Amino acid sequence: MKTTSLVSPTEILRKYNDTFDQPTFGDQYDKVYDGVYYFIRNEGKQIRPLLLMLACDMLGGDIDKALNPAYAIQMFHNSTLVHDDIIDKSEYRRGQLTVNKKFGRNTAIMAGDMMFIIAYEYLLNHSDNSNLHQILKIFNQTAVKIMEGQQIDLEFENRDHISEDEYLSMIECKTSVLIAASMEIGAIIAEASEQNCHHIYEFGRNIGIAFQIKDDWLDVFGSAELTGKKIGQDIVRNKKTYLFVKALQLANEEQKIKIDHALKQTDDNKKINKVLELYHELNIQGHTKEKMNYFYDKAFHHLALIDIDPYRKESITEITNQLYTRKK
Amino acid sequence: MKTTSLVSPTEILRKYNDTFDQPTFGDQYDKVYDGVYYFIRNEGKQIRPLLLMLACDMLGGDIDKALNPAYAIQMFHNSTLVHDDIIDKSEYRRGQLTVNKKFGRNTAIMAGDMMFIIAYEYLLNHSDNSNLHQILKIFNQTAVKIMEGQQIDLEFENRDHISEDEYLSMIECKTSVLIAASMEIGAIIAEASEQNCHHIYEFGRNIGIAFQIKDDWLDVFGSAELTGKKIGQDIVRNKKTYLFVKALQLANEEQKIKIDHALKQTDDNKKINKVLELYHELNIQGHTKEKMNYFYDKAFHHLALIDIDPYRKESITEITNQLYTRKK
Repeated sequence: MKTTSLVSPTEILRKYNDTFDQPTFGDQYDKVYDGVYYFIRNEGKQIRPLLLMLACDMLGGDIDKALNPAYAIQMFHNSTLVHDDIIDKSEYRRGQLTVNKKFGRNTAIMAGDMMFIIAYEYLLNHSDNSNLHQILKIFNQTAVKIMEGQQIDLEFENRDHISEDEYLSMIECKTSVLIAASMEIGAIIAEASEQNCHHIYEFGRNIGIAFQIKDDWLDVFGSAELTGKKIGQDIVRNKKTYLFVKALQLANEEQKIKIDHALKQTDDNKKINKVLELYHELNIQGHTKEKMNYFYDKAFHHLALIDIDPYRKESITEITNQLYTRKK
Repeated sequence: MKTTSLVSPTEILRKYNDTFDQPTFGDQYDKVYDGVYYFIRNEGKQIRPLLLMLACDMLGGDIDKALNPAYAIQMFHNSTLVHDDIIDKSEYRRGQLTVNKKFGRNTAIMAGDMMFIIAYEYLLNHSDNSNLHQILKIFNQTAVKIMEGQQIDLEFENRDHISEDEYLSMIECKTSVLIAASMEIGAIIAEASEQNCHHIYEFGRNIGIAFQIKDDWLDVFGSAELTGKKIGQDIVRNKKTYLFVKALQLANEEQKIKIDHALKQTDDNKKINKVLELYHELNIQGHTKEKMNYFYDKAFHHLALIDIDPYRKESITEITNQLYTRKK
C-alpha cells in the first residue's frame, strides 16, 4: 500500500479550480459555449470532484492524475442539471438564472449536450491508458442509471402511490450512483484493490442516499434562517419526497383523506401547515432521521472496511460529516 | 495492403440490422427506453453506418469489427435528431410522430441523452483497444462540431444576412463532419495508412456538403411526384438554405426588395411562386448545381487518391451516386 502524504481538501479544491473553467475546447466564438461557461463558472458545492480526488488521495493515488476525471464528473453532473432545469422549468439554480431562463430552451438543450461531450473529452484527456476503459465503463453505466432515475422521477409526478422502496431506488439512481462512481474512479486511479474499490463505492452510494434524504428533511425541518430558503417549498410543489412517501405509507384512511385535502389547498402557507400537522402526527421527522442514519451508518461501515491506515480516512470523514450536518 | 474479398452493401446492411435494434442495455422496464426504441426501430436511410462499414471493407478491414462503431455513429446521429426535433418543434420524422410529439418534450430530452450514452457504450464495446482511444477522440471532436453547427443554424434564424461561406461552414459542421468521421473510423478499423484515412475523411466531408446542398435543391427543384414531398416547404418556413443565401448574395437592390416582399406573403403558394420567380431571374438552379458539383468532384478527387486497387472503390462509388442522384 502506498503511503504518500495526504493533501488537504482546500488544496485539492484549489488545484481543481485553478484549471477547471478555462476554455480549452471547441470554437470559442460559438454561442453555445456562452451557456456552458455561464453555468460552469458558478460551480456550486463541487462535492463530486472533491470526493473523487479525496478518495484517490486517501488510497495513495496521485491527485494530479485524478484532475481530468474530476472535471469530467463535474461537467457531466452540470450537464444533467442544465437538462433537468429545462424539464422542471426551473428559473433559478445556484442563485442565478438557469441556462434555459437566460439563454432560452434551445440553447440550454445544446449547452447540456455540449457539456456531456466535454465530460467525455476530459475523460479522454486522462492520460492513463491502463485504466481508461474501466473508468469510461463506470462513467457510462452511471450515466445510464442517472437517466433512468430522471425518467422514474418524472413518472412519480403522475402517480398517487409510490412505495418507500421505489423512492429509495429512484434517488439511488438519480443522486447517489454518481457520488459512488466518483469515489470508485478516484480509487481506480489510485490503483486500489478490488475490495477497496467496492467499499469506497458502497460508501459513496449509501452516503449519497443519506444526503438526498437529508435534503428532503431540510426542506421541512431546516430553519429558514440557516438554510436561506423558505421552508416547505417541496410541499408547495407537491414533490414526492421521502417525507411525503413515508407519510402516505403510515397514514390511516382518515389521515390519507386529510393529506388529500391539504394538497388541494391553494393558499401555500395553509397547505404547508396542514401537511406539517400530519407529519407531526405520524412522527415523520423521527422516521426520516432513522432512515438517514441507517444509510449514514451503512456508509461508514464500508469506510471502516477499507484496508488502509485509519488516519488516511480522516479527511473524507470530516468532509462527509460537514456535508451531512450542513444547514443547506 | 490487404486484399480480402469485398462484401456487398446489402450484406453489410443485413449484418448491421440483424443486431442493431436488439435491447442490450439498461433496465428495459424504464420508460425512457420506449422513446429510444420507438425512434431507432424506424431507421431511415442508415447512410452513416453503411458508409463506415463500406469504407472499412474497401480498405481491407474486417466489417465485424466495424459493427459497434457503426451502431455508435447511428445512435449518436439519432440522438441529435431527437433533440433537433424538440428545438425545431417538428411533429414528423421518417413518416412517424417525433419522440417529443409522441412521448412529450421531457422524455424526448432524456431519450436523446440516453441515446448519446448508448452511442458511447457501443464504442466501448468495440474490442480493439489499439485504436479505441483514437476512435473516441474523432467521435468526440465530431460531436462538438455538430453541436457548434446546430447552434450556428439556430442563430441563422434570427439573422438577415448570411454569407455563402458562413452557410457552407454551418452545413459542414451540422451534416458533413459526421459522414466524414464515419468513413475515417471505418478506415482506422481497417488499419489504413494515415494518407488513406485523410483522403477518405475528405471524401466524406465533401460528399456530405454536396448531399446537403442537394437536399436544399430538391426542396425547390425536385418534382413533387418523385420526392413525395410538397415542393417549397423550406421557402414557406423561411429556411436559410443554400439557394436562399445565394439569391440574397446575387440580388441587386430591386431584387432584394422583391425577396423581402415575397417573405412577407401570408399565402404559401404565392410566397413560393414569388421566391421561385426570383430564383429563376438569378439562375439559382444553375449556381446551386455548380456548387454541388464542385463538392462532388472534390470528393471524388480524394477517393481517387486513395492508394488501393480501383475495383475496391466501386461499391462506395455506386452507393454515393445512388444517394447523390436520389429523388428524396
